[in-house]
Amino acid sequence: MTTPTLFWIAPGAALVSLAFAYLFFRQLQTKSEGTERMREIAGYVSEGARAYLKQQYKIVAFAFIILTALFAFLAYQLHAQNPWTPVIFVSGGLFSGLAGYFGMKTATAAASRTAQAASESLNNGLRIAFRSGAVMGLSVVGLGLLAISIWFVILVQLHSPSGKPNMPFITTALLAFGMGASLQALFARVGGGIYTKAADVGADLVGKVEAGIPEDDPRNPATIADNVGDFVGDVAGMGADLYESYCGSILATAALGAAAFAYDPSLQIQAAVAPMVVAGIGIVLSVIGIYLVQAKKDASQKSLLHALDRGVNFAAIGIAVLSIPVIFGLGLPNGWGIWTAIVIGLIAGIAIGKATEYYTSSDYGPTLSISENAETGPATVIIAGLGTGMISTYIAVFAVCISIIFSYSAASGFDLANMAGGLYGIGFAAVGMLSTLGVTLATDAYGPIADNAGGNAEMSGLPSEVRQRTDALDSLGNTTAAIGKGFAIGSAALTAMALMASYVFADPNIDSYKNANELLLNYINTHELHLLNPRILIGLFIGSLMAFLFCGLTMNAVGRTAKDMVEEVRRQFAKDDKILKGESTPDYASCVSISTQGAQREMLTPALIAIAAPVCIGLLFGPAGVIGLLVGGLATGFVLAVFMANSGGSWDNAKKFIEEGNHGGKGSAAHKAAVIGDTVGDPFKDTSGPSLNILIKLMTMVSIVTAGLTLSYSLF
Amino acid sequence: MTTPTLFWIAPGAALVSLAFAYLFFRQLQTKSEGTERMREIAGYVSEGARAYLKQQYKIVAFAFIILTALFAFLAYQLHAQNPWTPVIFVSGGLFSGLAGYFGMKTATAAASRTAQAASESLNNGLRIAFRSGAVMGLSVVGLGLLAISIWFVILVQLHSPSGKPNMPFITTALLAFGMGASLQALFARVGGGIYTKAADVGADLVGKVEAGIPEDDPRNPATIADNVGDFVGDVAGMGADLYESYCGSILATAALGAAAFAYDPSLQIQAAVAPMVVAGIGIVLSVIGIYLVQAKKDASQKSLLHALDRGVNFAAIGIAVLSIPVIFGLGLPNGWGIWTAIVIGLIAGIAIGKATEYYTSSDYGPTLSISENAETGPATVIIAGLGTGMISTYIAVFAVCISIIFSYSAASGFDLANMAGGLYGIGFAAVGMLSTLGVTLATDAYGPIADNAGGNAEMSGLPSEVRQRTDALDSLGNTTAAIGKGFAIGSAALTAMALMASYVFADPNIDSYKNANELLLNYINTHELHLLNPRILIGLFIGSLMAFLFCGLTMNAVGRTAKDMVEEVRRQFAKDDKILKGESTPDYASCVSISTQGAQREMLTPALIAIAAPVCIGLLFGPAGVIGLLVGGLATGFVLAVFMANSGGSWDNAKKFIEEGNHGGKGSAAHKAAVIGDTVGDPFKDTSGPSLNILIKLMTMVSIVTAGLTLSYSLF
Repeated sequence: MTTPTLFWIAPGAALVSLAFAYLFFRQLQTKSEGTERMREIAGYVSEGARAYLKQQYKIVAFAFIILTALFAFLAYQLHAQNPWTPVIFVSGGLFSGLAGYFGMKTATAAASRTAQAASESLNNGLRIAFRSGAVMGLSVVGLGLLAISIWFVILVQLHSPSGKPNMPFITTALLAFGMGASLQALFARVGGGIYTKAADVGADLVGKVEAGIPEDDPRNPATIADNVGDFVGDVAGMGADLYESYCGSILATAALGAAAFAYDPSLQIQAAVAPMVVAGIGIVLSVIGIYLVQAKKDASQKSLLHALDRGVNFAAIGIAVLSIPVIFGLGLPNGWGIWTAIVIGLIAGIAIGKATEYYTSSDYGPTLSISENAETGPATVIIAGLGTGMISTYIAVFAVCISIIFSYSAASGFDLANMAGGLYGIGFAAVGMLSTLGVTLATDAYGPIADNAGGNAEMSGLPSEVRQRTDALDSLGNTTAAIGKGFAIGSAALTAMALMASYVFADPNIDSYKNANELLLNYINTHELHLLNPRILIGLFIGSLMAFLFCGLTMNAVGRTAKDMVEEVRRQFAKDDKILKGESTPDYASCVSISTQGAQREMLTPALIAIAAPVCIGLLFGPAGVIGLLVGGLATGFVLAVFMANSGGSWDNAKKFIEEGNHGGKGSAAHKAAVIGDTVGDPFKDTSGPSLNILIKLMTMVSIVTAGLTLSYSLF
Repeated sequence: MTTPTLFWIAPGAALVSLAFAYLFFRQLQTKSEGTERMREIAGYVSEGARAYLKQQYKIVAFAFIILTALFAFLAYQLHAQNPWTPVIFVSGGLFSGLAGYFGMKTATAAASRTAQAASESLNNGLRIAFRSGAVMGLSVVGLGLLAISIWFVILVQLHSPSGKPNMPFITTALLAFGMGASLQALFARVGGGIYTKAADVGADLVGKVEAGIPEDDPRNPATIADNVGDFVGDVAGMGADLYESYCGSILATAALGAAAFAYDPSLQIQAAVAPMVVAGIGIVLSVIGIYLVQAKKDASQKSLLHALDRGVNFAAIGIAVLSIPVIFGLGLPNGWGIWTAIVIGLIAGIAIGKATEYYTSSDYGPTLSISENAETGPATVIIAGLGTGMISTYIAVFAVCISIIFSYSAASGFDLANMAGGLYGIGFAAVGMLSTLGVTLATDAYGPIADNAGGNAEMSGLPSEVRQRTDALDSLGNTTAAIGKGFAIGSAALTAMALMASYVFADPNIDSYKNANELLLNYINTHELHLLNPRILIGLFIGSLMAFLFCGLTMNAVGRTAKDMVEEVRRQFAKDDKILKGESTPDYASCVSISTQGAQREMLTPALIAIAAPVCIGLLFGPAGVIGLLVGGLATGFVLAVFMANSGGSWDNAKKFIEEGNHGGKGSAAHKAAVIGDTVGDPFKDTSGPSLNILIKLMTMVSIVTAGLTLSYSLF
């Protein structure tokens, strides 16, 4: 049996995506890098980023080798594992690493060129920064969808006894790709997050607070590390994060489709490829959307925002329209139900993004109130930021709950007992939310490029109007990044839910069922997946604990590494007093190395815990414990992630609002208080908060991949 | 049919408890109140406390009237409610209010007397403070158990058709008592928490930080409000909280016992009274324990701690021994299983307490590391405190999980499918943990009395050695209070779980079953209480949200009221510059009134949300949504509560450690940073964190009481 014709949209679009990514990269290289000094600064940053990535990939490779050996043992020795798992797992990590590498290479090359372009006009600056961000966006979706398509074709060719592809086997095998992506993402997010925030916090504490020198001052030894950090955390980390969400949503939905339509083999394959095709359409629309981001030569900031919005909105509306022929072309029953799920996902993503903007932008009440609290000192800033962040979670939670109930209801044909159909709908809501990732990630990744361009301009002594322009670009980037984070968090919740259902279908006894709902019900009864089962309750508690524990570990990791950074900067200032006078160059490399080593050292424990927890709980309490763990981690982790992201964003913008001259402006007591709030918010919004999304999905992926093991052996 | 003979231990012990409470109160009144100035200061504080309590009870009465009317309508008009609910509900709140009133009256009378006694010797101070704290402890357990016993007797008399008491009806009706207690506790904890922390934060921010005057300085207009706050929050609030936990654990276990042994009516009544009898034994042991708290005349602090430990340990060991004859005397089958559950509860409570001590005391690494972080400023103190607090949650979670699995296993006869028996065991673990509350609460309530005695000594200008002694008593109180909080949090988790099971038994169709496990299974299947049901998932998300939302609201409430306080104190200092010179008396009353009004204004929204959420979710998503909500609230709220309590405690002690002369001591930059940490920690540990326990149980109680309504009408 061959794959459906429409399927070929997926690999085709993926190739288009990579072609445009390459084109944008080549176009970038033709632009001027600016003055000698600008090239020099950019060289430091790109050297630091390259060194970090190399170091990071070494450690990740080590982790992958150990896990692959373990999976190989499980697969070929104990036969408690799908035989494809080890190799597909590795490829998931590899492609994610490639996307990260391309994104970083482009971003580091773009900083000085953006600064140079911004010295011409705001629009030129936007163009370079955004097209460079688009390389990351298109590499992520292109490499992700290409790899998934290739594996799908291979598996269908090899596993179609008597012409009928064994879809449950194929889609479950593919989930290992998601696990590879998740593991890579965890290292990239946690490591990158620790790197960037340790550098940022360290640079601020000694530079801004103690020495009283401005941000990005070349006299500050931690400045280069801080700039490298923007790329390491906000480009590579964010990219790996969304690569993982993107692949995870497609793979989980494919697995659910294969299960939900098990009663009809011809529908089954259509249902499995449907998310891939929708993702393919989304890529083509994203490319067009990227071209729509154009502004007039002397555009205002408002019209720049409109330009970005135009690209994103075009892609979103396009998906809502073009998914109709896809769904009906594939002949899926209840097509309108599935379409509704896609549209609900899109709307929920935008709603979460807008809510994030409301709660974190200084244009609105909540952040203004936090900046007002700066007048009574740091304690009240912190209390107000924590309080407001906690309250702000309700919109994201409501958006996700509404998505769940409506996408489930619509896709199940309004029959809540049709679990397989309903869960397929939840998966599609996630696919819908992420289908336009090519362009939304571009708007995310462009922010740190603009930020770095500003750093480059500052350190190279370019005229202050250039810095003003890059600041305008950066501030725009903050708004779009907030919306991007909304998509990342919302899609994580929905994807995790779809993955959890895939966990059940990873049960090796699946073949004996024709009807997915019958299988689910039987699984629920056999393993007592109800809320009065003590194993479930324990799982839920441990899951909730995992979210807090993980945040605590990463917060402390940032704290410790920042402390090392503070001590190193103090040491350099004390050793050579010419540094602060600007007469001798500080040792940037030693700060870069502190962040690199800190990140490497500190990311292992959280990663190990995330991998070990589902296996340990599975061995102790079986599938009931595992499902409890995953649901507990999801329910707590999701709200905790939104809280931390919003508190952090809000503190950041409250500080910026004061720096604009309000409540006494720069240097006032209120400003000092707000800087403290911002510093606390740094690990909140860029390390711990965003890592939670990955934690949740990595735990789910690990559970799926080790399902065979924990089903066979469990203590209670 | 008459109640079992052993039952009479419960009301008997309750009366003993009240008699000793009265005795201690009378003994206190014979002691000297000290100088004229001491009486004056004590007068201000007790007047403020009285005014607050009066105001608080007015609002609470209003809330009770509305809810009682609503329940009466549900019960007598719609017949969707047990007819006893309205009146039993009111009595639950009333008795809690009485206990709070007795505790407050004694505590306010004790402060100046403790200061006077401390001017004689440390041991005399301890004696007065501790005996006064014991009045609160004994009033709480005495009034709680007495009311429960009386209602039990009445209901058994009235609802025993053909001589056989209708136990499910009786025990479910009794749960309304728990709801009254929960509602009263929520107001007391939230209102008291806002009061005390707004006053504390406000007093510190202007007094200590801006004006540079010491703690408890009579020149600070907010000083009296701060002292009143200790009583309002830490005595009345804590007392109502534990009253609610205590009654809740007994009532939930009684309901589960009635259900688990439904197959044998004579066992059923024994199983229902068993938790009451164990609680009665615990009261008698507590009274003896209180008498064991004695130290030599010139005792060191260490020997004082031993004295307190002696009382608590005696009661704990006593329960482990004496519960054996009770359980076997009542003829319960699987007696050793139930006994194991009791002992596990006791051990888990102590383990959580010790872990709390480890993570919050400056004798150990975590808090020392936070104080070290003060050297790099407030931001790193906050990050370290948050990180450490988050990590610290694992011990409490493990302790609760171990309690769950072992108490469930043991009490179910190692048959995990025997849900009713297992859940009865979880309930008994909570009863075991709280059985010695009479003495543990005394060690809790004595802390704020000692603290206030210190304030009284400071303001009355007593010699500094008196202040040193009261400080020693206070610091001892901090350690015991940490252990007390461990009991409160741990028991809340177990009680909530037992209550959730009672929710199922509140199903009016219960009569048609003889076997509790059959009923539970049928309920689970009918309402699809499994983790792939979208209603359950939505409930879990909303439950998790509730915990964060509630904390956010209470944090912001403290922030807002503290801000009003800061402005009032600044206004007074600006208006009359003689205040700071000590030449004119500040207007204490206006600060007292700001805290009172702030607490009243701010506690309504969180309370309303806590009551409305289970009803709304029930009406939308039926029992599956409600159970999801409760479990989600529990799993997230429990970990969040431990995190907030431990972070707050740790910051407090890190500050005290620096004040002892470390890292530069008082007035150093590190000290200022630590004060900011402590200020952020104030609402963490004394407002938001502890209120979460009550939120969880109040939501469960509301669900139980409105179960009839939400079973009949639900949208999805």
